[in-house]
Amino acid sequence: MPSASECAAHNRSSFEDEFFQFLRIPSISTLPDHASDIARAAEFARDQLALAGLESVELIEGDGHPLVYGEWLGAPGKPTILIYGHYDVQPTDPIDEWISDPFEPTVRNGQVYARGASDDKGQILANIKALQALRQASGRYPVNVKVLIEGEEEVGGEAVTAFVKSNPTRLAADAALVSDTAMYMPDTPTLCTGLRGMVYTEWFARGAARDLHSGLYGGVAPNAVFGLIELLARCKDSGGRVLIPGFYDDVEAPSEDEKASWDTIDFDEEGYRRNEVCASTLTGEPGFSVFERIGARPTFEVHGLPGGFTGPGAKTVIPAAASAKVSARLVPRQNPASILQLMREFVAEHSPQGIEIDVRLIHTAPATMVATDHPAIRTASRALEEVWGRKTVFIRSGGSIPVVGDFQEHLGIPTVLMGYGLPDDALHAPNEKFSLRNFHMGIASTARFLELLGAPE
Amino acid sequence: MPSASECAAHNRSSFEDEFFQFLRIPSISTLPDHASDIARAAEFARDQLALAGLESVELIEGDGHPLVYGEWLGAPGKPTILIYGHYDVQPTDPIDEWISDPFEPTVRNGQVYARGASDDKGQILANIKALQALRQASGRYPVNVKVLIEGEEEVGGEAVTAFVKSNPTRLAADAALVSDTAMYMPDTPTLCTGLRGMVYTEWFARGAARDLHSGLYGGVAPNAVFGLIELLARCKDSGGRVLIPGFYDDVEAPSEDEKASWDTIDFDEEGYRRNEVCASTLTGEPGFSVFERIGARPTFEVHGLPGGFTGPGAKTVIPAAASAKVSARLVPRQNPASILQLMREFVAEHSPQGIEIDVRLIHTAPATMVATDHPAIRTASRALEEVWGRKTVFIRSGGSIPVVGDFQEHLGIPTVLMGYGLPDDALHAPNEKFSLRNFHMGIASTARFLELLGAPE
Repeated sequence: MPSASECAAHNRSSFEDEFFQFLRIPSISTLPDHASDIARAAEFARDQLALAGLESVELIEGDGHPLVYGEWLGAPGKPTILIYGHYDVQPTDPIDEWISDPFEPTVRNGQVYARGASDDKGQILANIKALQALRQASGRYPVNVKVLIEGEEEVGGEAVTAFVKSNPTRLAADAALVSDTAMYMPDTPTLCTGLRGMVYTEWFARGAARDLHSGLYGGVAPNAVFGLIELLARCKDSGGRVLIPGFYDDVEAPSEDEKASWDTIDFDEEGYRRNEVCASTLTGEPGFSVFERIGARPTFEVHGLPGGFTGPGAKTVIPAAASAKVSARLVPRQNPASILQLMREFVAEHSPQGIEIDVRLIHTAPATMVATDHPAIRTASRALEEVWGRKTVFIRSGGSIPVVGDFQEHLGIPTVLMGYGLPDDALHAPNEKFSLRNFHMGIASTARFLELLGAPE
Repeated sequence: MPSASECAAHNRSSFEDEFFQFLRIPSISTLPDHASDIARAAEFARDQLALAGLESVELIEGDGHPLVYGEWLGAPGKPTILIYGHYDVQPTDPIDEWISDPFEPTVRNGQVYARGASDDKGQILANIKALQALRQASGRYPVNVKVLIEGEEEVGGEAVTAFVKSNPTRLAADAALVSDTAMYMPDTPTLCTGLRGMVYTEWFARGAARDLHSGLYGGVAPNAVFGLIELLARCKDSGGRVLIPGFYDDVEAPSEDEKASWDTIDFDEEGYRRNEVCASTLTGEPGFSVFERIGARPTFEVHGLPGGFTGPGAKTVIPAAASAKVSARLVPRQNPASILQLMREFVAEHSPQGIEIDVRLIHTAPATMVATDHPAIRTASRALEEVWGRKTVFIRSGGSIPVVGDFQEHLGIPTVLMGYGLPDDALHAPNEKFSLRNFHMGIASTARFLELLGAPE
């Protein structure tokens, strides 16, 4: 009987073909024009689950984009693992900066360039293909498996949270597996033990009732764009410290153990600045290390300022309305609702003269932590070490995967964050890519993790 | 022989038809897609000059959009007047806020709604139609006339400046007439005696080499949007005072005479706030009156911040690049080049950590003043009083008409700023309009001005 890894090796080329088919579907969840692409991506994911041998495979329609679900419960007495991923992707702007079409996967130097390659199509597909290889090898999986794939991860949709909350029995499992994070560096197996949470808002400013001519009214008319600038500049100092009162109240310092583990990582800060962040300097709060600033400290970012005149050339307008996309990344113990409330109080208190500002919530997610001594994490760590031949490192990620908090809260299970991305995958940016080597090593890693999970003690 | 006003009355309906035809041409000068509309508008203006009886009518092609020129020099010994206007218009965004199509003129309550109705198609056409009526009445004009119409006023194009500079003999005149300003209030004949100047710039910010994920890099990566916010907020305090060192150095207070004349105007500040600016409060520098703030004080405005994520919903990106449209309105004695230099020095000194900011000039214009005792202004004042039956008021406009500075500098002539717009015409904003009554009264006013100019002393 062939092993799962032999089956995976045999299917290498068809697995890549299917990966590329998945990438060709422009399933951008935030843009209403792409609704039919979202539907196609959901159907594609459903068909992949069926092909991998899952049963009761279905699309679950409700508010928002459909969920994809399948399960196989043929291993009584063995653990049950809940695998999660998402089939939706980020928008592609700025489109000019893409070297190749974001929805025509192109391989350069062993990397597949396409929107969603790493986040998360390549990673969820690696897990599905691990299941397919296991099934092909032995006609079964070593553990009970449930797979849940959503289409609103990039927009903070509520569909998956509502589903998890209302289906605790159907989704019952011993642990969840999510591959939607990155390895610390190439060929360094990595488990992520903490994720930041998120409050994503849009601040709507209104000044005069209509746009005004900046010559005729400059000197008396409130400017909605400048009002936002004034207010936003008060939210964070030039050193990167958030100035909203109470913002840091619930932030806990990382444990001494955790700090010690980071110290064992051979981190080249100058190389990181130059080759990964690609900036003239690293910014952020003084007195905190890079690992703390990106994993264990909250942030406040402005992503864009829609409104006013943004076309080419000159328009001499005093904008009546504008908005700002504003988010905060949160760390464990910070409560998203409280942070939103603090933002709103700050805005109410500091709105500039003549400008009304309304903070509307887009979505929230709490931060999450997984202890490194949990059995599922220990098994994952061992599987990774076997496949990659190197010691597994534990890091926190600065990103947010909201469903991990839902699994903790509503199912009472921890999540193994076993990601196969790389730090330079350019998530959410032009020229996103995923390493083809990591795609195949990911299949092998997940298969091995499930084998070890199902092995007799 | 009929009088010019009888001829104008007779042609009332055809003059309106031609005005509407002019408005239907979407001659937006800043948008490259509208190049063919610009060409059509130039041809339309040229044909109107011919119809009005001007001679040597031509399109003058060069860099940028064509100039339209015509002249009639059949009144030797009489003064020569140079009439200027522009056939280009502002963009229409935000398009959603227009009640009717910006390029399908629609009359509501005696107002013609369309982009360019007041700025400047209705006003330049009123002057052309005055010439047509004069010619029709007597077969000649009472003075020598030169007409110059440009297509880049809204984008600060250099074509007209270059043409004026290199054709001082061809354009030689005793005074210029420009109808591109507003009356102080309905039925109040108004001459504008001062215009603010302008420095319009775009500030380009660059942080990291590419957009970064705000989860993975939030805490270490410079954010180009926030960098601009930080810097721009330092440029002006919350009271509206510009903080760029040296900005006010050359600003002169208005003369006591000028202040006294403003005091004679019955100004309802609360009504102006409520009905014209339509804002919850008037803003601007404390200690200065509204007339001073909009006419005699310089300003600093941000018109928009292109870059980052501005689509619907959420995108968690740290923008690598962004820019800000920034302009300052200048008053007499402030030098545009010096102000640009002060901006650049300020930016160089205060650029936030990790952000490179480059200030690029889009265009400049010096402020201009015309003395109220100039003979052409006195004649204009008398003509307006005859036609409107009320005393002419003298105000400064906060707007900028760069060519007025060119006429002063290169031709050595003052400009009569005899505008027929109204303060609520919504220039540069949705639902721009022009009063049909003012269109016809404007024709009569210009005709009477030229008659008086040509009358024996």
